Amino acid sequence: MSGRIASLILALVLLTGQQPVRWQSKGSADGFDLVDKAGNIRNPSDVRDLYRLLGTYTVELDPKGEEMHVTYASPDAAKYYRKNGKFADGTVLVKEVFATDHAAMTTGDAHWASDTKVRFVMIKDDKNRYPNNSLWGDGWGWALFKADAPDKQVATDYKKDCLGCHLPAQSTGWVYVQGYPVLKSK
Amino acid sequence: MSGRIASLILALVLLTGQQPVRWQSKGSADGFDLVDKAGNIRNPSDVRDLYRLLGTYTVELDPKGEEMHVTYASPDAAKYYRKNGKFADGTVLVKEVFATDHAAMTTGDAHWASDTKVRFVMIKDDKNRYPNNSLWGDGWGWALFKADAPDKQVATDYKKDCLGCHLPAQSTGWVYVQGYPVLKSK
Repeated sequence: MSGRIASLILALVLLTGQQPVRWQSKGSADGFDLVDKAGNIRNPSDVRDLYRLLGTYTVELDPKGEEMHVTYASPDAAKYYRKNGKFADGTVLVKEVFATDHAAMTTGDAHWASDTKVRFVMIKDDKNRYPNNSLWGDGWGWALFKADAPDKQVATDYKKDCLGCHLPAQSTGWVYVQGYPVLKSK
Repeated sequence: MSGRIASLILALVLLTGQQPVRWQSKGSADGFDLVDKAGNIRNPSDVRDLYRLLGTYTVELDPKGEEMHVTYASPDAAKYYRKNGKFADGTVLVKEVFATDHAAMTTGDAHWASDTKVRFVMIKDDKNRYPNNSLWGDGWGWALFKADAPDKQVATDYKKDCLGCHLPAQSTGWVYVQGYPVLKSK
């Protein structure tokens, strides 16, 4: 009979197996699956298929041009944030920076994402797990991947490579939460 | 012993119960869960928490102002589209139209979504299920909900209320697929 129960468990696991099991069996994503013992961060796969949108910023570049910054979060990140006012330990945020195209549409001049330029990854770390790694600090792990070599993490020091652009968001945990409607209501 | 198996099933259902079961047990979402026998479409709940991003358009309004149009799809929609070059029967697309705020940021003038104005819903229908309902046709069900009364569907005729803005996208199944990177690569 224990064999029958084991078969039943296997069948149920297969039936619910549309997504990797780790996203379904926990209340929040465990971003540390992406991190090795030394603190090196891998580029998460299937972000567009599995993560949820936090929000989109468009940025008018100086002197000209425009980027679209799209930020995704691991599946239960927003739910936890709405309840607790902060991101859970292990939450993964991914920001894809896109070039844009535009054209006149029926409702006005429309702009949309074209090619990916770079991808930023942040992993929430409440326990200061990698004190000797220069890509971890201020409550997060920080990583940067370029579109032409997506497996190669290229940031070397989060204080130099990442924090500059996040300074205006220091009071909200280094994240630009004002542009993420899902953190306020589902 | 069958009681023990039933308890086991219940426990497993509870353990994997972070999301409604209907999203986990099927290869594609069944948007017809949102539709009654007459073809009336309900506003789907938990879209921001459960659906995936297709993409974002910003639209510069004439004479002035800007909107952000964010389109979400039911969970496996993009995966199916990449494989088959079209949306699966029952796929749900939701477009939230936001007002925007903007401010000078470190990388340039940045724009982001503020309040929701309206929400459009489309449900893919390959079988012409509701030939007598004026909100169904051209392969989709069409619906519109305003932010101040989100439970009330207010479109009356998709040809008058919806199709006008979708005409430029007729050749791509009435959907502006060029702005949705996830339909090209995950």
